[in-house]
Amino acid sequence: MTMNTINIGLLGLGTVGSGLVNILQDPQPRLAARQLRITRIAVRTVTPERQAQYPGIALTTDSQSIVTDPKINVVVEAIGGTTKAKELIKTALTFGKHVVTANKDLIATDGIELSQIAATHHVGLYYEAAVMGAIPVLRTLRNAYAGDPISRITGIANGTSNFILTQMIAHGSSYDDALALAQRKGFAEANPANDVEGLDATYKLLILTRFAFGMNPSMDDVDIQGITTLQPQDFVTASIWGYAIKPLAVSELTPDGLCLRVAPHLVPLGHPLAAVRDENNAVLIDSQNVKRLSMVGPGAGSLPTANSIVADLLDLADDIHYGNTPERFVDTDTPAIVADSAHRVAPRFVSITGTGFTREQLRALGITGRVQRIRGRTTVLTGPVADTDVQRWHSQLAAAGVGLIHVLPVLQG
Amino acid sequence: MTMNTINIGLLGLGTVGSGLVNILQDPQPRLAARQLRITRIAVRTVTPERQAQYPGIALTTDSQSIVTDPKINVVVEAIGGTTKAKELIKTALTFGKHVVTANKDLIATDGIELSQIAATHHVGLYYEAAVMGAIPVLRTLRNAYAGDPISRITGIANGTSNFILTQMIAHGSSYDDALALAQRKGFAEANPANDVEGLDATYKLLILTRFAFGMNPSMDDVDIQGITTLQPQDFVTASIWGYAIKPLAVSELTPDGLCLRVAPHLVPLGHPLAAVRDENNAVLIDSQNVKRLSMVGPGAGSLPTANSIVADLLDLADDIHYGNTPERFVDTDTPAIVADSAHRVAPRFVSITGTGFTREQLRALGITGRVQRIRGRTTVLTGPVADTDVQRWHSQLAAAGVGLIHVLPVLQG
Repeated sequence: MTMNTINIGLLGLGTVGSGLVNILQDPQPRLAARQLRITRIAVRTVTPERQAQYPGIALTTDSQSIVTDPKINVVVEAIGGTTKAKELIKTALTFGKHVVTANKDLIATDGIELSQIAATHHVGLYYEAAVMGAIPVLRTLRNAYAGDPISRITGIANGTSNFILTQMIAHGSSYDDALALAQRKGFAEANPANDVEGLDATYKLLILTRFAFGMNPSMDDVDIQGITTLQPQDFVTASIWGYAIKPLAVSELTPDGLCLRVAPHLVPLGHPLAAVRDENNAVLIDSQNVKRLSMVGPGAGSLPTANSIVADLLDLADDIHYGNTPERFVDTDTPAIVADSAHRVAPRFVSITGTGFTREQLRALGITGRVQRIRGRTTVLTGPVADTDVQRWHSQLAAAGVGLIHVLPVLQG
Repeated sequence: MTMNTINIGLLGLGTVGSGLVNILQDPQPRLAARQLRITRIAVRTVTPERQAQYPGIALTTDSQSIVTDPKINVVVEAIGGTTKAKELIKTALTFGKHVVTANKDLIATDGIELSQIAATHHVGLYYEAAVMGAIPVLRTLRNAYAGDPISRITGIANGTSNFILTQMIAHGSSYDDALALAQRKGFAEANPANDVEGLDATYKLLILTRFAFGMNPSMDDVDIQGITTLQPQDFVTASIWGYAIKPLAVSELTPDGLCLRVAPHLVPLGHPLAAVRDENNAVLIDSQNVKRLSMVGPGAGSLPTANSIVADLLDLADDIHYGNTPERFVDTDTPAIVADSAHRVAPRFVSITGTGFTREQLRALGITGRVQRIRGRTTVLTGPVADTDVQRWHSQLAAAGVGLIHVLPVLQG
């Protein structure tokens, strides 16, 4: 079919925005046929030199003029942040423009509201790039799992954390050295808090949960544990037990409701997620019919992220061509049923300072399982334990003056 | 949106057909909303008992009556084979019905012709289930790579072969024992030739090549090597070199054209494909923007395959709802440019009976590289070598009376 030109207004010319310009300016034949054209870009400052780099595209500092421009069909939001981005997206949707974004923070917190505005105005709101960069996980969940009940989503959703832990595993680096290397390589920001404290992975987990389970939990429903307190010694003791430590985001449907967890997990060394290294992301989808599907790929970066934006644009191109209302990217009308912490259960790896702690003393605290004393630590691998019990361990061990180093969840299956 | 009922006529009630009935008869809420109904099924024999198992669905032995039935919107072909299936699909398309099939043999050989008939009659022809069962590789290539030039597709495309080689690696089984176990478990047919001699993987590679490179090579363009001559000793020697042996299908775009190969390959032990075990399938997509994306999942089986048929049906549901012509699943109007055998290059693993063969004798035949004598064999790991050189080695070694066991390609990257 012959397509009409689709005029795109781009907000932001940072890493992701410039990646998109890069791909669309010299398109592959199959992409060229879709006639996607960036006609205007909103940037912070316009100089004649900068404008000269983008022939045929009008740079402007007035982003409002883009989201209200009647000639623009699709707005790509790539400025990040929440307040201004949200206002611009709302305006664009209200003005009947389709919107594509990679803004995970905004979609995690305000995605439902924005999606309702999009539906009201018969336009699409797509954000494949917001979750795991180049991995087409949202569209796969949407297209391939409508008839297949999912039981668990397990992901390495934060490339920065995976890069840091890979350095600590592979080279015995300290957390600080690994973080500094990640920052030098551009995998971590100057202020890495969102990545290393688990918030970024939590945003992605909330979005994944909508697609996998049709439910809409909130940040408060997620048990979040960062990677900042891990030490090289943790990787040594874990590997003696036969485990790697990987930064996982897990959303599991249990009989008691959703169990949502973002934490460094012990992962068996032969497990497919144990082999996902460096800044890569990964997702395992466990379901009734397919059993297990896994996908691994770059979770961030200019071109990988922009590539997922292109996939969203292609999905919209047909609907624009035919004048159809795009389908909602995800329906989340079912309220979230979340397991309370007494029903959030996982095996645990307990690591205590010193080797003098006896099995009986552990049992008195309710910590039972296999015990190994490794390099100055008492480590215990327990059976399934509820979060409430782990909370109790923390307070009891503190009260007893015992140096508790970590209680980490252990991935099952 | 409210959907009209989509009436599906199913041809065949074997493994795949019954999986589809299973999923659609008790649909998940999101699937139920799409109103996909199997109204008629063509089977070989209808008995009252069998009909009673399918309330609300009319069984018939007259498949022709289904593909011409004006009330049917979509025909799902699940009888397999080529001649009859092709005639039925052609008739269905000509009668304006969309068609979904898992028939890789037919799509590999006659897919272009059928796709042109579909386009002429403004209907869709989809076959996600034909390649790697539950792995959504065709739709991913179609949706996520329009703007990202692919350089190589590397797959474990035949679950039977992977199961057999996994048995040989993990348990030191002989080929015959591993095949017998695969047959007992239902992973191999009574006549396993298509699977173990590489034809099944070749069909899939031809289809993957259309989606990845927009080119349409033929069976003759593929260098095909089966797994039937592998011996337990091969896995031992390969592992001493640091490699697993995996059944790969590779389609690579080189400056000399496409290089297409189906063969047991040496794969470095740390490589993601080396960890793909049992009857699983896997695909690595190497490209300019994303760099590398990998997907692993079940490549066959009733529900995994039926699940991909459901994904095709969902893709069609929108177009049926709006009365749009579905997009062609793939465009392959570019002629295939295939590298000749002098330009099909790969490193090789050479395995020769006996340890007496000297490095000088090898060099005289043009076989150079690292040499190890392992358990009664002389093994050589060469640099990149063209297929024409390998053909020459075979004839020269035979002429010299040397017991050449194997020359296997080695996966790079």
